[in-house]
Amino acid sequence: MIKPSDKALVPFVSVDNMMALVNHIGLEKILIDLASEIECDFKRWPLFDKSPRVASHSNVGVIELMPTSDGELYGFKYVNGHPKNTKKGLQTVTAFGLLADVETGYPKLLSEMTLLTALRTAATSALVAKYLAPRNSKVMAMIGNGAQSEFQCIAFKAICGIEKVCLFDTDSNATQKAFLNLANYGLKVVKCKSSQEAILNADIITTCTADKQLATILTDNMVGAGVHINAIGGDCPGKTELHKDILLRSKIFVEYPAQTRIEGEIPTIK
Amino acid sequence: MIKPSDKALVPFVSVDNMMALVNHIGLEKILIDLASEIECDFKRWPLFDKSPRVASHSNVGVIELMPTSDGELYGFKYVNGHPKNTKKGLQTVTAFGLLADVETGYPKLLSEMTLLTALRTAATSALVAKYLAPRNSKVMAMIGNGAQSEFQCIAFKAICGIEKVCLFDTDSNATQKAFLNLANYGLKVVKCKSSQEAILNADIITTCTADKQLATILTDNMVGAGVHINAIGGDCPGKTELHKDILLRSKIFVEYPAQTRIEGEIPTIK
Repeated sequence: MIKPSDKALVPFVSVDNMMALVNHIGLEKILIDLASEIECDFKRWPLFDKSPRVASHSNVGVIELMPTSDGELYGFKYVNGHPKNTKKGLQTVTAFGLLADVETGYPKLLSEMTLLTALRTAATSALVAKYLAPRNSKVMAMIGNGAQSEFQCIAFKAICGIEKVCLFDTDSNATQKAFLNLANYGLKVVKCKSSQEAILNADIITTCTADKQLATILTDNMVGAGVHINAIGGDCPGKTELHKDILLRSKIFVEYPAQTRIEGEIPTIK
Repeated sequence: MIKPSDKALVPFVSVDNMMALVNHIGLEKILIDLASEIECDFKRWPLFDKSPRVASHSNVGVIELMPTSDGELYGFKYVNGHPKNTKKGLQTVTAFGLLADVETGYPKLLSEMTLLTALRTAATSALVAKYLAPRNSKVMAMIGNGAQSEFQCIAFKAICGIEKVCLFDTDSNATQKAFLNLANYGLKVVKCKSSQEAILNADIITTCTADKQLATILTDNMVGAGVHINAIGGDCPGKTELHKDILLRSKIFVEYPAQTRIEGEIPTIK
């Protein structure tokens, strides 16, 4: 049998491979290590060739390409966002990505990034909160209890020392699922009946909702002073979670302004 | 053994699969069928969600993402261009691409696109020449004799009725390789010692060079009236093949102006 050249073969990390890797290393350790890598990358931020993601919108969702390069490695992610997919038994978000050699343009690695996206988002959120949230934060409100919320809760426990999470979702089934899945991570998990109840006494509020319509998950009067808000749902034009008045009295930190001025709540305060 | 859900499996068309397909259908028939599909797509051109490709440039080459959608299917291509790769035994261009369902954002098909890019470029060139080149064109000059030139020659024979191709490349080994590879396609193939010799009596001139530096393959005095020039090498900023004066006296047809105003020779006549 003729064997193809090794230049013709690109290793592929499947979802199964990634889950085996996560289980082997341990979810909390992966999140901690990932946060540390991300912190290193933030320290060499100007080196990266960055551009806002390239989004193709339809009535039901969005498909995006997110390329970047540090001059040695080039990578991109393909990711979709389809909030109604869950009703069909499909995931809201699926993703895969490629790593390539800038010197030759040849692909080096193809990987699932559905899990990686969840891990990276959670690790980044918690890394940022480590620097920006009140010292000794112990309680986090978790608004929006889809799959991503579980990664958020575990990352905030592992990286920021959060001890208690208060869950709320307009869909109580989502809350119940997250509640059960979070049972064995050493977190105190409380199911709440409203956002107001969830954010009572919270040091950190994470909003993680997927609805593409202009939405207000948190209004100004709901949020006290000194709270750290980790609003991660606003990743499409018109996809918002926070009332404008909250932004106007907050210190705002974003990852990449050229991106953030297109999507989420920042354009509302232009 | 646990079998993954069929929703988790994306069919992959490898280079081997694609070569088997091309050999099974026949190269000329594939080019003719492809040109016909491309013509149908041009007829519904306004439907497509188009944007200039997203390019990441380095000193040695470029890596690009090229997304589009017709509202039902979304596709993108990853493609690199590294002219010095051939010296390392690697290809100048490699590519792969994905087809996805706009309704769910789920990938439907992953395919090699190194071969597909060569086929698509050649089929589009010949399709366009069918409408724009002089009637009864029989002779084509082929300047730049890398791998793509062979596809160009065969497509122009199959789709436009070209009978004779005159090859020239600054690297005579490239000309010799193309000459040998084109031996059994029913074309009269002539090796030339200069561009001037190659374009003498040509009805169509195809330039297909890969050098990223500002280059002038054809100067104004070399090209007579009524000749159809198929200049396909200018696919990066500063990558040119034609002297500005040729453009100033020509009718110019491009595929996608928003793209063409960034790359190749068109920006020189802004």
